[in-house]
Amino acid sequence: MIIVLKPNCPEEQVKKFTDSLTQEYNVKVNTWVGTQSTVLGLLGDTTSIDIDYIAAQDFVESVKRVQEPYKKANRKFHPDNTVITLPTGQKIGDGNLALIAGPCSVETEAQICEVAERVKASGATFLRGGAFKPRTSPYSFQGLQAEGLELLKKAKAKTGLPIVTEIMSIGHIPLFEEEGVDIIQVGARNMQNFELLKALGKINKPILLKRGLSNTIEELLMSAEYIMAGGNDQVILCERGIRTYETYTRNTLDISAVPILKKLSHLPVVVDPSHASGIAWLVEPLAMAAVAAGADGLIIEVHNNPAKALSDGAQSLTPDQFDRVAHHVLRTKDALSKLNA
Amino acid sequence: MIIVLKPNCPEEQVKKFTDSLTQEYNVKVNTWVGTQSTVLGLLGDTTSIDIDYIAAQDFVESVKRVQEPYKKANRKFHPDNTVITLPTGQKIGDGNLALIAGPCSVETEAQICEVAERVKASGATFLRGGAFKPRTSPYSFQGLQAEGLELLKKAKAKTGLPIVTEIMSIGHIPLFEEEGVDIIQVGARNMQNFELLKALGKINKPILLKRGLSNTIEELLMSAEYIMAGGNDQVILCERGIRTYETYTRNTLDISAVPILKKLSHLPVVVDPSHASGIAWLVEPLAMAAVAAGADGLIIEVHNNPAKALSDGAQSLTPDQFDRVAHHVLRTKDALSKLNA
Amino acid sequence: MIIVLKPNCPEEQVKKFTDSLTQEYNVKVNTWVGTQSTVLGLLGDTTSIDIDYIAAQDFVESVKRVQEPYKKANRKFHPDNTVITLPTGQKIGDGNLALIAGPCSVETEAQICEVAERVKASGATFLRGGAFKPRTSPYSFQGLQAEGLELLKKAKAKTGLPIVTEIMSIGHIPLFEEEGVDIIQVGARNMQNFELLKALGKINKPILLKRGLSNTIEELLMSAEYIMAGGNDQVILCERGIRTYETYTRNTLDISAVPILKKLSHLPVVVDPSHASGIAWLVEPLAMAAVAAGADGLIIEVHNNPAKALSDGAQSLTPDQFDRVAHHVLRTKDALSKLNA
Amino acid sequence: MIIVLKPNCPEEQVKKFTDSLTQEYNVKVNTWVGTQSTVLGLLGDTTSIDIDYIAAQDFVESVKRVQEPYKKANRKFHPDNTVITLPTGQKIGDGNLALIAGPCSVETEAQICEVAERVKASGATFLRGGAFKPRTSPYSFQGLQAEGLELLKKAKAKTGLPIVTEIMSIGHIPLFEEEGVDIIQVGARNMQNFELLKALGKINKPILLKRGLSNTIEELLMSAEYIMAGGNDQVILCERGIRTYETYTRNTLDISAVPILKKLSHLPVVVDPSHASGIAWLVEPLAMAAVAAGADGLIIEVHNNPAKALSDGAQSLTPDQFDRVAHHVLRTKDALSKLNA
Repeated sequence: MIIVLKPNCPEEQVKKFTDSLTQEYNVKVNTWVGTQSTVLGLLGDTTSIDIDYIAAQDFVESVKRVQEPYKKANRKFHPDNTVITLPTGQKIGDGNLALIAGPCSVETEAQICEVAERVKASGATFLRGGAFKPRTSPYSFQGLQAEGLELLKKAKAKTGLPIVTEIMSIGHIPLFEEEGVDIIQVGARNMQNFELLKALGKINKPILLKRGLSNTIEELLMSAEYIMAGGNDQVILCERGIRTYETYTRNTLDISAVPILKKLSHLPVVVDPSHASGIAWLVEPLAMAAVAAGADGLIIEVHNNPAKALSDGAQSLTPDQFDRVAHHVLRTKDALSKLNA
Repeated sequence: MIIVLKPNCPEEQVKKFTDSLTQEYNVKVNTWVGTQSTVLGLLGDTTSIDIDYIAAQDFVESVKRVQEPYKKANRKFHPDNTVITLPTGQKIGDGNLALIAGPCSVETEAQICEVAERVKASGATFLRGGAFKPRTSPYSFQGLQAEGLELLKKAKAKTGLPIVTEIMSIGHIPLFEEEGVDIIQVGARNMQNFELLKALGKINKPILLKRGLSNTIEELLMSAEYIMAGGNDQVILCERGIRTYETYTRNTLDISAVPILKKLSHLPVVVDPSHASGIAWLVEPLAMAAVAAGADGLIIEVHNNPAKALSDGAQSLTPDQFDRVAHHVLRTKDALSKLNA
Repeated sequence: MIIVLKPNCPEEQVKKFTDSLTQEYNVKVNTWVGTQSTVLGLLGDTTSIDIDYIAAQDFVESVKRVQEPYKKANRKFHPDNTVITLPTGQKIGDGNLALIAGPCSVETEAQICEVAERVKASGATFLRGGAFKPRTSPYSFQGLQAEGLELLKKAKAKTGLPIVTEIMSIGHIPLFEEEGVDIIQVGARNMQNFELLKALGKINKPILLKRGLSNTIEELLMSAEYIMAGGNDQVILCERGIRTYETYTRNTLDISAVPILKKLSHLPVVVDPSHASGIAWLVEPLAMAAVAAGADGLIIEVHNNPAKALSDGAQSLTPDQFDRVAHHVLRTKDALSKLNA
Repeated sequence: MIIVLKPNCPEEQVKKFTDSLTQEYNVKVNTWVGTQSTVLGLLGDTTSIDIDYIAAQDFVESVKRVQEPYKKANRKFHPDNTVITLPTGQKIGDGNLALIAGPCSVETEAQICEVAERVKASGATFLRGGAFKPRTSPYSFQGLQAEGLELLKKAKAKTGLPIVTEIMSIGHIPLFEEEGVDIIQVGARNMQNFELLKALGKINKPILLKRGLSNTIEELLMSAEYIMAGGNDQVILCERGIRTYETYTRNTLDISAVPILKKLSHLPVVVDPSHASGIAWLVEPLAMAAVAAGADGLIIEVHNNPAKALSDGAQSLTPDQFDRVAHHVLRTKDALSKLNA
């Protein structure tokens, strides 16, 4: 951390400040006195230093972090890729492409089982489906809730596909554990629901953490850090589009986030082209781009009858469309693997 | 709701679709057949219709809502301003300016009591102070939590100022009720924590709902609608800056949101210039702008020693600075009242 | 400028680099060697140093400017407010409120003269009107061009109001000079048309420089610097709304830009509430907010018949509406003046 | 175009309005009278109708365009892909991948010739290099200007690579024609410099049009329409990153723009991963993503000595790095071609 002090800050004040930093945060402070201004360099673990606290000192001109404020999620301290392995053997982050597919909302047993079987046949390795649904309107369908988890369990029993589904409240954690949810998803709107993150840090299940609508890459990593700081290292990061001024798509897929997250962190990174665009025909080109940019997996909405979907129909693929996308991305992934071989 | 169908949609399909809309949503459908395309106009209460569901039909070109998707928060159905009156008599939304002031975090009894007394003397009508703190980093100070609520209660006992403080989890509602919190704040990061909103809809306390970092005005009103749909009509809307590309300020105060929210809704609207800017010297001009734009109140961070604040010190005013701001905004409010008289 | 080098950068390399900085840019370099990294502090005039050039060195971790990259527009080097005085005596930046009003496009002699007379009667001190119009579509009305300037001259002859009108091309400068345009406006889309800025730096007329759709405050000041570096010090800065994700308004008025620009620079700052919102009924509250935040002037669109306007009718006020707004803002400005007295 | 009138608009007014639309714009107006509101549907060519003009009528509730406002750039009216063929035979948009490479700024004959030879050897098909440079600061290097064009011509003579270089002013068009520039680039900051676009519409050279920092996809197509409306059909669209709140990268590559532009328009689409990210190591993954998303070409900054580059060094590749990127993208393009075969 580099702290630039305002011009003419009295020597005495500088000393008092550096002493307090040394004591409170256990860091070493190097002082560089220039003719016009003084610069302090803090060495050691500065993650616990609140940058706002420093900036609030009236003799401080500006502060700059050199070290990232996250540790457990940081590749610097964990150079090897994290591979998340489910008890049933499936892996995320191991060089293969995790294909997570299924409907936005679980609706009926027939629906979820049919979709599960179809996407499995096309190469999907995980089943997604919403039981608890975050909806902008209180008057929209809120999901089948507990019943939805039941139906997902049935689809899993039939197909063997592990289940990825979203949690919206701490109170539901026991239910998610009982019902054998394999990967718990934290949605974009809850990325900074810190109490939920803390609670998920105490369980032993992989968490798929979606980037918030307008959260930075660093904030996403800080939210992963919340979960990891609690003791749960199994975090999967998900880029799902950010909010910008462009209105053609629902969100703007930040494709750069994929290589950046992989450079800054050792955690696996998946991409959700369905929510990023909100438009079914864009799913294929965005999925292809995600794979080419190095994503470890894709989450794709598939519905057996998009026009009858109770939510997000406009962005869902039919099983036939998914089959084509899966075929293309898997072949592309193969071609890319050879490229680096 | 206006639905534009794709060119050459078969008459039979149109009929089947309009029949299903009529039955499922209890709306009247008017069909206008043009030479190239057909347009449907839905009359009646369309708030429960999911626009995505309509857009997902493959014969639909586009959909446009004419009616706002919120009802209880909508001024059209509730033309008079809502005035929220606390049991202790204070009002928000009655033409006076609510001045909500206090530190970002409650730290000690001495701190909160001193700040409370000072801001009261300057004209503040409510005391704010964070006990549960949403922090980007798990390693930052997370607030005094339950103890913080205790200290706020003491400051209230000394000054008579009602308390505004933030809730971060459903599980804390009983504690907030026990401790006599007067107004429960939902922070920007939880604006779309729908389970929390639902739970707050079931209690009988005013809720101060902050706009999310990148949420639209309509989304803010939909979140208010969640609380109101549960039965709690006492919602105060808060503009606190949105995230944009500009980096000079922490957020960009969307001053236009004030008159727009007041036009679209009957709920009171307050502004938080401290979080909007993140810079203490900007609080005064932004507070002045908010009052001139018609805000019903202001939330301002005040700390007896900003440089020692455990959070957000850079944007906190000293009690002396707050005194000056309060004086200026209250005199300006007076001058404006005469203008419209 | 503070330059943080990567860990373990060889001493020899550091020396070579600091020597080159000293020679090329005539700055003094202070080197602070820490146990892990080395920090360089550059003292002197660093405005001509390209930050990208520094960042491109492979041994550089990061660079931070401490000094602003603009000089002539910088309040640090010119503490007093700039007041722009027209040959005809009108002033901008002198504590009064410049009221610049008129139609988006000049359409007919009758229209521009009627509007000019009406806004003058309401207190306007300048007449605006577009002759050369930047339109998104090549098929939209492009303005009356040279003829529009003629008509503006006539309206000026009748009312004595100096003229503010937009330039879109270097080639039009002689025409603007001949026709006696008093203040030349650079529109948002041309804020970084650097060749145009350079050319305007060589003439002796005030330039009203509008902030680009998504330009930062610093970039606006750098564009002012372009004009001033050429020798023309008469620059008026204009905040006219920035592009964000919010769609209710055409743009989002960045009200914070007003006090920030006034702090960073000595140049006068005016606000355009008409373009910022794109909605006529929002002009009054935004104009009030601008005045309360310290703006030196307002630019407001007024049309004698908005529904017949050839451009931007939705945001134009009628002369009667403008009369009310002018009355309110002028009385508010008075009240505010007393406040600080 | 669908126009929703306000409730209770008098029949007489509706008639007067529809008559005026019919006469002024030569469109057919269908009127649908509902119990609460009236909707008008306009059939025919509505590109010349100003949507603001309609919205400004006080009896209009809202307006919605159904038809895109661009014609010549619209794939609906020109279903086949446009292929741009240079006199020297090179093609853009024909299924091959155009590789446009070279330094940000032309600096010396040795530099541009060395880079040209190196990138050609790696598979580049065009040479880029800036002679006129748009720089944020008036104190930064502004390019070699006319001399830079001379040097580009020499590099072209040596390598046969056609030249792509940026124009900043109408006044330079004759020089660009004399010096044999093959493709004239319009930079992001001039995307809505409409006078420049009009002038380029009158010449017979391909124009590479970069998307503005915060321009929508539709605005980019409208700017292309300006050039095409003037008679020059040879427009190449370029996605180069948009401005968002994320600060890790200089801009955010909007990868979705590639498939969207190709769906809406018949014009070729290229991607600039260097400017989109501003970071050399991100060029490869973003280039790969662009190819996977269907781009017709790439523009990549290559410098023989990035650390000595006079501009944008931080994002430039060395010739060796470019060689690797070119190899990867060309092999990926091959693999993708087989996929769709």
